[in-house]
Amino acid sequence: MPNPRPRRRPAFTLDKNQVNFAALTPLTFLRWSAHVCPNRLAVVHGTRLFTWQDTYMRCRRLASSLVRLGIGPGDTVAAMLHNTPEMYELHFGVPMAGGVLNALNIRLDPDSIALMLNHAGARVVVCDREFSGVMAAAVGKVDDPPLVIDVDDPEYAGPGTRLGQTEYEALLAAGDPQYLWNPPLDEWDAIALNYTSGTTGNPKGVVYSHRGAYLNAIADILAWRLPRYAVYLWTLPMFHCNGWCFPWAIAAVTGTNICLRKVEAGSIFSLIRQYQVTHYCGAPIVHNTLLHAPAQLREGIGHRVQGMVAGAAPPAATLAGMERIGFDLTHVYGLAEVYGPATVCVKQQEWDSLPVEDRAARNARQGVRYVLEEEAAVLDPATMQPVPWDGETIGEIMFRGNIMMKGYLNDPQATADAFAGGWFHSGDLAVVDADGYMKIRDRSKDVIISGGESISSLEVEDAICHHPAVLAAAVVAQPDPKWGEAPCAFVELTPGAQITERELIEYCRSRLAHFKTPKTIVFGQLPKTATGKIQKYALRARARSVAAIE
Amino acid sequence: MPNPRPRRRPAFTLDKNQVNFAALTPLTFLRWSAHVCPNRLAVVHGTRLFTWQDTYMRCRRLASSLVRLGIGPGDTVAAMLHNTPEMYELHFGVPMAGGVLNALNIRLDPDSIALMLNHAGARVVVCDREFSGVMAAAVGKVDDPPLVIDVDDPEYAGPGTRLGQTEYEALLAAGDPQYLWNPPLDEWDAIALNYTSGTTGNPKGVVYSHRGAYLNAIADILAWRLPRYAVYLWTLPMFHCNGWCFPWAIAAVTGTNICLRKVEAGSIFSLIRQYQVTHYCGAPIVHNTLLHAPAQLREGIGHRVQGMVAGAAPPAATLAGMERIGFDLTHVYGLAEVYGPATVCVKQQEWDSLPVEDRAARNARQGVRYVLEEEAAVLDPATMQPVPWDGETIGEIMFRGNIMMKGYLNDPQATADAFAGGWFHSGDLAVVDADGYMKIRDRSKDVIISGGESISSLEVEDAICHHPAVLAAAVVAQPDPKWGEAPCAFVELTPGAQITERELIEYCRSRLAHFKTPKTIVFGQLPKTATGKIQKYALRARARSVAAIE
Repeated sequence: MPNPRPRRRPAFTLDKNQVNFAALTPLTFLRWSAHVCPNRLAVVHGTRLFTWQDTYMRCRRLASSLVRLGIGPGDTVAAMLHNTPEMYELHFGVPMAGGVLNALNIRLDPDSIALMLNHAGARVVVCDREFSGVMAAAVGKVDDPPLVIDVDDPEYAGPGTRLGQTEYEALLAAGDPQYLWNPPLDEWDAIALNYTSGTTGNPKGVVYSHRGAYLNAIADILAWRLPRYAVYLWTLPMFHCNGWCFPWAIAAVTGTNICLRKVEAGSIFSLIRQYQVTHYCGAPIVHNTLLHAPAQLREGIGHRVQGMVAGAAPPAATLAGMERIGFDLTHVYGLAEVYGPATVCVKQQEWDSLPVEDRAARNARQGVRYVLEEEAAVLDPATMQPVPWDGETIGEIMFRGNIMMKGYLNDPQATADAFAGGWFHSGDLAVVDADGYMKIRDRSKDVIISGGESISSLEVEDAICHHPAVLAAAVVAQPDPKWGEAPCAFVELTPGAQITERELIEYCRSRLAHFKTPKTIVFGQLPKTATGKIQKYALRARARSVAAIE
Repeated sequence: MPNPRPRRRPAFTLDKNQVNFAALTPLTFLRWSAHVCPNRLAVVHGTRLFTWQDTYMRCRRLASSLVRLGIGPGDTVAAMLHNTPEMYELHFGVPMAGGVLNALNIRLDPDSIALMLNHAGARVVVCDREFSGVMAAAVGKVDDPPLVIDVDDPEYAGPGTRLGQTEYEALLAAGDPQYLWNPPLDEWDAIALNYTSGTTGNPKGVVYSHRGAYLNAIADILAWRLPRYAVYLWTLPMFHCNGWCFPWAIAAVTGTNICLRKVEAGSIFSLIRQYQVTHYCGAPIVHNTLLHAPAQLREGIGHRVQGMVAGAAPPAATLAGMERIGFDLTHVYGLAEVYGPATVCVKQQEWDSLPVEDRAARNARQGVRYVLEEEAAVLDPATMQPVPWDGETIGEIMFRGNIMMKGYLNDPQATADAFAGGWFHSGDLAVVDADGYMKIRDRSKDVIISGGESISSLEVEDAICHHPAVLAAAVVAQPDPKWGEAPCAFVELTPGAQITERELIEYCRSRLAHFKTPKTIVFGQLPKTATGKIQKYALRARARSVAAIE
């Protein structure tokens, strides 16, 4: 084949300038909705209703007041808030001022909060009156305490005092509703800081960029096919990976944010009915709460509702039950480091005709990368080569691309470790099925090594959960003098159920290899994180003490 | 209000690296769909059916063969093709090889094509056998002729010969289906080059970047709420602003591309019925063609179809008629410089209850910026200040943001002019209604839009003026029931000269593409201003009355 002759290449390298280039930032989504649908409802909380125009002006007031307080690029503004309008506004107002939002887990203790405020150098903390006690104790432990701004939510009538020098609404009243905020100078600039809740106990500060937040907000829309004018109920805490970036996604689709202080079936169904809620997110426990709530709470809800579930695979019973009551679940997977979910179990059209158990089994997988994430793969961490798509060979889920933290704040070693070998190491062990869908087998730190054999704690938990008396189970490693480690199960029973440790061990033995069968079973309620994840590190400590006694 | 004390700012400036940063490129969408839905139909053309896996492998074969031919970063690969699978594949295969795709308007004459091949330094041109005559003439005029690769479409049985040394399928057969292509080193790198007839008669080469193509493909999805698995019919030429970036958008939603050589109601309705087409785009003439086709052609189509319309506002009769036959139209507006559409007339929910004429009037407006475009505004070009939202004050539509060309190829002056004052000047004059929606009032320059194609009046005038009998000529748009607009020429003859309308039209046809040739010629003295400028507004009125008589 003849080669074309070489020739002078034309000059395609035209410069970037203010006309043909703008920093990617999700803040523009708010400006867009305020322009296009100024009078649509943006945020609803109890009797307080804000349009997109209202919300945009409140965010500009907030930004201008923060600037007046000295907040600028690289300054941290912390928040200790429920899913209230203030929390939503901080997602825009803080970065409009150039600041970095650090939304704190509201269930944390004063020591953890103090550690984070110190580490982030927080200059301001916005705090709901409900948390004044914890925050007062935390601030008392900080070397250089932040300015506290109180949120006194009319929807909250419980205990707590105003702690700070300033109240949020007064701060807004003093602000400029026409404030001319600037987009970030660089789309790589930080927009948010999120401390990993730590099923490990070692919180790290995960830094998000404007670019990443923008792309993940869009990726959420694409993964869920989130429609324009979606009505979104805030069952997922905004302090968790910035509500998986949905504060920004809802602004991009001009949806309506329905706020919620507390995840309770009664108020959730009531809001779904009142506002015709179309979408909500949550860990499996949120969906199970709805499923097992009294049926009369659902009366009058005639439309289908879309739920997104992350944190653990939804069991077949949950999926089938939710479908029956009119809720379609989409299963996603991710971590704080990838802005929340970064994979989705894309539903294939041919699954529609399958029995619900088969559909549930397919939907229980972690699936494939978000279309805007560059790579998600299961690699052998020793060779960094992809595992075969055989549903058997275990590797570690790894990511790389734009939906990825900048790194851990002030922790170059942890950042380097997490990014070793050119990939982010999730710590989750998985296989890849023949269709290229990833399926988690275990957390790498949750694997139990017994007599040199690896035991997947998930597999053991699955076996236990098949027993009708079992509501939930968690299996961890227990030191064992003979085998090194042995499985130890923690089991929560269904109400009224009765079973002995011996009976349940016998049951497991009928379903599992002998070496995988738990040596010890502890009955009782399972400790959970704010986001509904079981705190395995607490169970490991317990398992060690149980072993020591024996 | 007490200020928080200054403190050391934490180091949020974490570096970019291969884990947390990737160049934005729409090429990854193809890889995604090939992974997630390898066996879904990607491209359909007559009896040829390609899955996403097939298409990905064909594009990799193409890229590897182009690299072997010496194509690399900054090399132009031109295409003279209908909307066939090859054209779709070039949108991925060329940039996978690092090249820049230059899709040529298939209606152009040899001189124009030669000019573009020269200007772009095209090293390869992929050409449908139907255009071998025109292309042979064009290549003969190029100083350093490109390698010609023939496409011999089994769906085409008309005249034309194989022109080149190589046939497309042979090129693919020699390629590597597992070719390891690289994303662009920089997302700012060029992905495509599109010549616009512009408004001056000098075609300008509009350069698109990977970043811009990526963002506009997503913006299309968001503006139209394009669903996963959309079935997209290619009524819009892919040589038009790269089919408004839909080749990439369809890959991102794992849709199905239904190819089409010719816009004819019969084949369009037949394909809509056969493949349950959900979406298509086109100028108003495309939609009108469907509307006015015999009703029996639509028989058996039971689903609603979404159409996107650009190039001119859809008249109320079109909108109402299309609704009646089950087609919903979304009105968008843009130019080659902003990757095709960059504004959309977002439908407000409250319009749903309005009479169709009122809805049509609202939908006829150019609307608001795409949510991913940074700015679209109507500014007074003298002051660069926004006009009031009064529906009366005329300004010029201007854009800036990421959905914006890098600039014009090898034309720094034209680029500087287009970007003067920190905005891209569209040349379209508009008002802004009280709801912030833009509405075009007039074109500041003299472009004629015929069948969705821009015709420069200057270019047509130039051709006419070459005739020795012609003293002066002015060309304006004339309303045309079929094409929307058609060129109407006003001609002043040299003293004593004699020529008929038919003779002059024949003369033009020898120098111009058929669609650019005037449909009407009016002889007589041209009205001029005191300073000798031709009063085109007077000629436009005259052209309208001439059309009305016909």
